Amino acid sequence: MSEAATFLALVRHGQSEWNLQNRFTGWVDVDLTDKGREEAREAGGLLNATGVDFVGCYTSVQKRAIRTLWIALDEMDRMWLPTIKCWRLNERHYGALTGLDKKETAEKHGAEQVKIWRRSFDTPPPPMPEDSPYDPARDPRYRDLAPSEIPRAESLKTTLQRVEPYWREEIAPRAARGESLIIAAHGNSLRALVKLLLDVSDSDIVEVEIPTGNPLLFEFARGSTAPRAARYLDDARAEKLPPIPEK
Amino acid sequence: MSEAATFLALVRHGQSEWNLQNRFTGWVDVDLTDKGREEAREAGGLLNATGVDFVGCYTSVQKRAIRTLWIALDEMDRMWLPTIKCWRLNERHYGALTGLDKKETAEKHGAEQVKIWRRSFDTPPPPMPEDSPYDPARDPRYRDLAPSEIPRAESLKTTLQRVEPYWREEIAPRAARGESLIIAAHGNSLRALVKLLLDVSDSDIVEVEIPTGNPLLFEFARGSTAPRAARYLDDARAEKLPPIPEK
Repeated sequence: MSEAATFLALVRHGQSEWNLQNRFTGWVDVDLTDKGREEAREAGGLLNATGVDFVGCYTSVQKRAIRTLWIALDEMDRMWLPTIKCWRLNERHYGALTGLDKKETAEKHGAEQVKIWRRSFDTPPPPMPEDSPYDPARDPRYRDLAPSEIPRAESLKTTLQRVEPYWREEIAPRAARGESLIIAAHGNSLRALVKLLLDVSDSDIVEVEIPTGNPLLFEFARGSTAPRAARYLDDARAEKLPPIPEK
Repeated sequence: MSEAATFLALVRHGQSEWNLQNRFTGWVDVDLTDKGREEAREAGGLLNATGVDFVGCYTSVQKRAIRTLWIALDEMDRMWLPTIKCWRLNERHYGALTGLDKKETAEKHGAEQVKIWRRSFDTPPPPMPEDSPYDPARDPRYRDLAPSEIPRAESLKTTLQRVEPYWREEIAPRAARGESLIIAAHGNSLRALVKLLLDVSDSDIVEVEIPTGNPLLFEFARGSTAPRAARYLDDARAEKLPPIPEK
């Protein structure tokens, strides 16, 4: 560990019940499976082994991320760390695909169309119908949001648009003050953060795959949020990372 | 449920490992036993059955209270509720008695003396020695406290003195604005809150015993934190409550 460094750990939640069932989840509040809980414990062990003195945490308002954080903090014996939950760290909203089986959706709409919905930067899936049982507009956890803030479907681009101000206004200033933080969240909200941190292009970011339960640790010089290093804590399960941007 | 009411639920954590071993705990961060976890689940079920729309939570920085809250929120399917952890809601600091077996302490100091330490309003136990393995001054969770804020022993009176400003400045204004809140904490920090809410005398408060895992629900008229009703959610395990003060 370098002198006068600040750290930011991104933790992607592990297997959820709908991952297991191969269904589009998005804003539906499904729980972790036993395997997902085990992944969270491993993430906690890996975070602990860094010796980083984390002082606070962020997570979404979705239980698969919250539980991942809780299990990791328990494993780290840091349940007392202050934690802020915010919808802006939620998973991408999957619109009308929410709840559908991925294989059936591919058979119905064609594999190519589903790949576009899943992997394009700026094409959102069709909007969630007003009568959907999954409509977040009726969920009390979103009651303080303006109606315009509640998405009916999101692309990675629009996910980034709601993650970015939260990073810039809430999290980055704390990191720049020297606070090492943990963010437990989802594939696409974390992908948005990686795009911001590593200045990844729109076309490259869709190829970035963050492994579950394997914390991605950024290191900043004190007073900065320009990364000087980034690595997965479990080497054996690391994915390729975009390069650290030149200053 | 009355119209335009606001609610405050006090939840005392259930059995901890040192409750089971009959040791003085105070600020030592012992965990819940399996029985304590079951009590927390029951508390969550009781809170849920009220139908109260809780919007936020408070707890101490001690894991037996945090875990009680986490298990209750899980049971309520309200893991997303914003939660603030503060040392001011910690259990009373037991000074030099911390870690000692209650029976051995009675044999050594006399049952009468131990009763005074446990039950008087304003007699603290002897201070914790500087070399105690339990000294909170070396615990990172207390690093932002002024040295003068870290107790070496507390009476119920001095516990009240650190709970009271937190209630008055942080929690009560939110309750007065109509926010129904949950506080998961400890025998003595909750006793301090009951003293403030029900205006109990110094001599009467030491007789008030709050059962574990049985939420105590206060009801306020909107805009007020003067209780108009108070009841334990599990009738069968209710303890006697001081009367509601006259206006």
